Amino acid sequence: MVRVGILGATGYTALEAMKLLLRHPGAQITAVTSRTDKSPLAAVHPQLARRLELSLEDLSIAQLQERCDCVFSCLPHAASAEIAKQLVEVGVRVVDFSADYRLNDPVSYKKWYEHEHPDPARLGNTVYGLPELFREQIPAANLVANPGCYPTSAILPLAPLLKAGLVEPGDIIVDSKSGVSGAGRTPKLGTLYPECNESISAYSVGKHRHQPEIEQILGRVSSATPQIIFTPHLTPMDRGILSVSYSKPTRSVTEAELLEILSDFYKNEPFVRVSKTLPTTKDVAHTNFCDITARVNGGRVLLISVIDNLIKGASGAAVQNFNLMYGFDETTALL
Amino acid sequence: MVRVGILGATGYTALEAMKLLLRHPGAQITAVTSRTDKSPLAAVHPQLARRLELSLEDLSIAQLQERCDCVFSCLPHAASAEIAKQLVEVGVRVVDFSADYRLNDPVSYKKWYEHEHPDPARLGNTVYGLPELFREQIPAANLVANPGCYPTSAILPLAPLLKAGLVEPGDIIVDSKSGVSGAGRTPKLGTLYPECNESISAYSVGKHRHQPEIEQILGRVSSATPQIIFTPHLTPMDRGILSVSYSKPTRSVTEAELLEILSDFYKNEPFVRVSKTLPTTKDVAHTNFCDITARVNGGRVLLISVIDNLIKGASGAAVQNFNLMYGFDETTALL
Amino acid sequence: MVRVGILGATGYTALEAMKLLLRHPGAQITAVTSRTDKSPLAAVHPQLARRLELSLEDLSIAQLQERCDCVFSCLPHAASAEIAKQLVEVGVRVVDFSADYRLNDPVSYKKWYEHEHPDPARLGNTVYGLPELFREQIPAANLVANPGCYPTSAILPLAPLLKAGLVEPGDIIVDSKSGVSGAGRTPKLGTLYPECNESISAYSVGKHRHQPEIEQILGRVSSATPQIIFTPHLTPMDRGILSVSYSKPTRSVTEAELLEILSDFYKNEPFVRVSKTLPTTKDVAHTNFCDITARVNGGRVLLISVIDNLIKGASGAAVQNFNLMYGFDETTALL
Amino acid sequence: MVRVGILGATGYTALEAMKLLLRHPGAQITAVTSRTDKSPLAAVHPQLARRLELSLEDLSIAQLQERCDCVFSCLPHAASAEIAKQLVEVGVRVVDFSADYRLNDPVSYKKWYEHEHPDPARLGNTVYGLPELFREQIPAANLVANPGCYPTSAILPLAPLLKAGLVEPGDIIVDSKSGVSGAGRTPKLGTLYPECNESISAYSVGKHRHQPEIEQILGRVSSATPQIIFTPHLTPMDRGILSVSYSKPTRSVTEAELLEILSDFYKNEPFVRVSKTLPTTKDVAHTNFCDITARVNGGRVLLISVIDNLIKGASGAAVQNFNLMYGFDETTALL
Repeated sequence: MVRVGILGATGYTALEAMKLLLRHPGAQITAVTSRTDKSPLAAVHPQLARRLELSLEDLSIAQLQERCDCVFSCLPHAASAEIAKQLVEVGVRVVDFSADYRLNDPVSYKKWYEHEHPDPARLGNTVYGLPELFREQIPAANLVANPGCYPTSAILPLAPLLKAGLVEPGDIIVDSKSGVSGAGRTPKLGTLYPECNESISAYSVGKHRHQPEIEQILGRVSSATPQIIFTPHLTPMDRGILSVSYSKPTRSVTEAELLEILSDFYKNEPFVRVSKTLPTTKDVAHTNFCDITARVNGGRVLLISVIDNLIKGASGAAVQNFNLMYGFDETTALL
Repeated sequence: MVRVGILGATGYTALEAMKLLLRHPGAQITAVTSRTDKSPLAAVHPQLARRLELSLEDLSIAQLQERCDCVFSCLPHAASAEIAKQLVEVGVRVVDFSADYRLNDPVSYKKWYEHEHPDPARLGNTVYGLPELFREQIPAANLVANPGCYPTSAILPLAPLLKAGLVEPGDIIVDSKSGVSGAGRTPKLGTLYPECNESISAYSVGKHRHQPEIEQILGRVSSATPQIIFTPHLTPMDRGILSVSYSKPTRSVTEAELLEILSDFYKNEPFVRVSKTLPTTKDVAHTNFCDITARVNGGRVLLISVIDNLIKGASGAAVQNFNLMYGFDETTALL
Repeated sequence: MVRVGILGATGYTALEAMKLLLRHPGAQITAVTSRTDKSPLAAVHPQLARRLELSLEDLSIAQLQERCDCVFSCLPHAASAEIAKQLVEVGVRVVDFSADYRLNDPVSYKKWYEHEHPDPARLGNTVYGLPELFREQIPAANLVANPGCYPTSAILPLAPLLKAGLVEPGDIIVDSKSGVSGAGRTPKLGTLYPECNESISAYSVGKHRHQPEIEQILGRVSSATPQIIFTPHLTPMDRGILSVSYSKPTRSVTEAELLEILSDFYKNEPFVRVSKTLPTTKDVAHTNFCDITARVNGGRVLLISVIDNLIKGASGAAVQNFNLMYGFDETTALL
Repeated sequence: MVRVGILGATGYTALEAMKLLLRHPGAQITAVTSRTDKSPLAAVHPQLARRLELSLEDLSIAQLQERCDCVFSCLPHAASAEIAKQLVEVGVRVVDFSADYRLNDPVSYKKWYEHEHPDPARLGNTVYGLPELFREQIPAANLVANPGCYPTSAILPLAPLLKAGLVEPGDIIVDSKSGVSGAGRTPKLGTLYPECNESISAYSVGKHRHQPEIEQILGRVSSATPQIIFTPHLTPMDRGILSVSYSKPTRSVTEAELLEILSDFYKNEPFVRVSKTLPTTKDVAHTNFCDITARVNGGRVLLISVIDNLIKGASGAAVQNFNLMYGFDETTALL
């Protein structure tokens, strides 16, 4: 039984991670932390009442080391790397939900996250936990950078085509729509119910931190680092991301060909479904699936993908990584 | 042209009041206040861009007196009475959206609102601004207590039957469902989008401050002060209140009779519509109407009513009172 | 491996049942039926793509008998009993999601469902599949009447108090609020998105077919058949039911006492959680739990309960019954 | 007083048109038609109870001629032109909400709408009722093609830049998100509440009929007919459209410059607001405004616009056209 700690257990991704782990025959949640809140977990997450009878604690590295084999860090960026580096050094394996270890280098990290990276040496050589692209690196990893939600939705459809040289890396638009849970559980005017209900809006246009992540990760599987124009939207729903990418084919290509390339690339993947029909976010809600389709329109390749931002975009991916790290069947607790 | 100031102009009821007043041929908004925010109004309420080019200000009583004939106070309770009493004394007429002047006496005020009333002398002799019951008192009033949203939805259907002695005042249940805008615009965990979307909950059961308001106001038109069991619910929608009341008839009564009594009572009212069909909150959304129907079931009288909590439950009622106070047609800016 | 057929597999409860059974180690879905639709299941329910690769079929009793040990009938009432009686006779066990076998007698069935019952002999002696009250009857049953969603939410909190003689059976009001999935998947104006979004309404007031079901089932555990005034509401959310019941205590009682009685009654139940905090439907969304609390207000006992109408209110209950019928741990596939 | 008939009065755009006209001091609704429904209007639209006491009728051309000076045709395409041509010939002026008179020629109409145009002679010489671009043609028009909702949201931001030759017409992507009311009021599985709530999806990708409309209308103000890749999305909200267009500048350009060009172009327009802040659909909900901003990102020009699909995207635009046709102030009933 792998003993798992949840760092920063009050938020939405932590809740989903705990719900998944409760179904996992080989995992046991042994610690749930919060720096400020000492409540019983069920007071913060009534969904967990009678299911996980722990209280929130503020634990030291030594205490975590004693109690946990592995932690899921749902801490904010910077805070996460600060603790992750210490845990890894004392032998606790870490799945990091924050963005701290996703980018290639401290310079781009500082540019986008606006402070010095607390653990620069590991930047660029930490495994990016997207099993569909980097599976072989995960089992041995002590630290896994769990992918961002938007990046997962954008990278999975684009990677096969970029790898095959079928679309131009220099001219890609990704227009994404996300449910509100992606904005976290801290009360803010912008995510108050009457502000975002019955309304859709683009935000962080040209400035979202997932843009360099999409570019750098796709750069690892592509001949050149792609240039992405990324526009995220806040959509009046709890969960789900729909991404539409518009790219230029390098040669004439049909929809059937695209679907075949994608299907072939993902034919052994348990969580990627390629289909000719247009997906909706509801098709994958509360699941670890990414559904993908392709269209050719006006000389452009359109790739349309959906995920549940809290599952395949966060906690499901973390469990998938956990399964690979500990030798469980990759789909354990995820189907 | 009556010059109107909006006190506490950053919230939802203030926004609706301003939108209504912009349609009013006899009113001009001359001041919008906030203690802390000095932004242009359109930065806080983008809906008002190019429609009302004022900035938020923190104004003294003297400044308000100079600029306004009348103010709509959208301040929190206690803060509202503190300012209202001073304004009234210098001749500025006040429509008070807070609960400060709605109850009968300082004792019950202190019990329910948990502090001393700042202006106890006016409690119990301030006009309750529900024109359907107290119209004749409004034109001469310098201070009007604008009714609470839940009370409006509950009082309008019950008053005619209590007045006629047709239902027992001592055994009334009011089960009400409100949209989230009723909880205000201050960011709180409980009204964060992912907390209340896809969820309904009862709150403040047995403790909601609108319970004594419903009882005391109905007591003014009834032979005895009613005893109300009041259960409010937070419903995943922006606006609207649906109230269902369950009361005991004092004699055998039919649905047709009830509808006739209600229709008759409200036959000259511009904003009360009695119908035999079951209403939905959408029927009255963005309007000043209260739609009412009645049923007899299991020996009980059921009254079902809907209003828009921000219009008939707040800002529309305020404009209706304003119209009466200044001699405008009562429906001005409201149809 | 128990072979399960899903009759009427195109709707929402069927979908949830299939999703749960896919997690069940002892069940295999071997047939999915529709009278009119012959599509691959994934065309009707994209969520099931790559998870359940069956096509819809119109199967005879003989074919069902050959392929299935047990069927979940998600057919409409009347149609369901028509088939269920034949299946039971040829040895296929049936969990009936329809209302056909829930009432006590053909007369009340005809009164409320407006046609002759197709299998009157079994009415009144079919097991009502609410394990919390009738567990011992379920293992041996060949036919189980799966409870209605509203009845489950109302019966679970009321039963212990009625059984203990603590509330008067003759004066109970149940005010319930349900998500829209409860209205089924057949396109109708009333459940069109723009009709019910941003709106709440009471419907079938005094006429809902779940009223006699609540009364008759509670009558089985109570000294007298209760009289229920039942008011259902359509709430703008996909799933969830919140029920508030108002009843009269037979003696003076405190909230603490009520909570203790309820906790005690359900202390060994895996899916009933009694708590002193007010529940929201989100606390139980996508789970088989029923969360309950109690209040005393104005001399009345208030019981507040929440379930997921599609899980504990339908498909989760069916799996719970299935587990009991086939000797699986009762929580299998449900946690 | 201009007498207005509403053809096809049961749908959402008809309802909004009636609500606006009820506020219009110079218009009177004198007929409301439906081919099949003869109900009182308030039975179909409870919002209009006590406000418009007409019943639906199936009226002949002669009856419409006798009763109306002008009609708003909310009929489906093809049906609309069939009647519009006859009304125009007998002197009744028509604002056509359908797509029948928006395209340039019968050939493209047949290609996109899949049948012969009933009135081909008027195609291509009917006024396109977007006052911001074609105001001078409207006052004298007997027939106005009221613009499509998506086209309005896409054309208004793009037209000034195309006219100025600032963006390349041959490479424009428009990614639009619409509320569900845009899909009409006929019950369909795809717009059932539990299908589209909590879900976003792209639809009609590469096939939506508004694509040629955007291209052809922009072609009228541009040096060349633009090529548009248009992707509409169904968003879980009642109303609102957000469109993001991605185009290539013909020369280096800054955000400030773009905003200045747009502001300048629309400086006298009562219903277009150009701002540097990112708009949300809620900013314009229930109004006739189109809010626009611009960004430069990755060498592309991004234009972001929001409208209420039922107001500026349909009924508000119709009233704006009506005001111009009859010499009323253009904003009458719209602010």
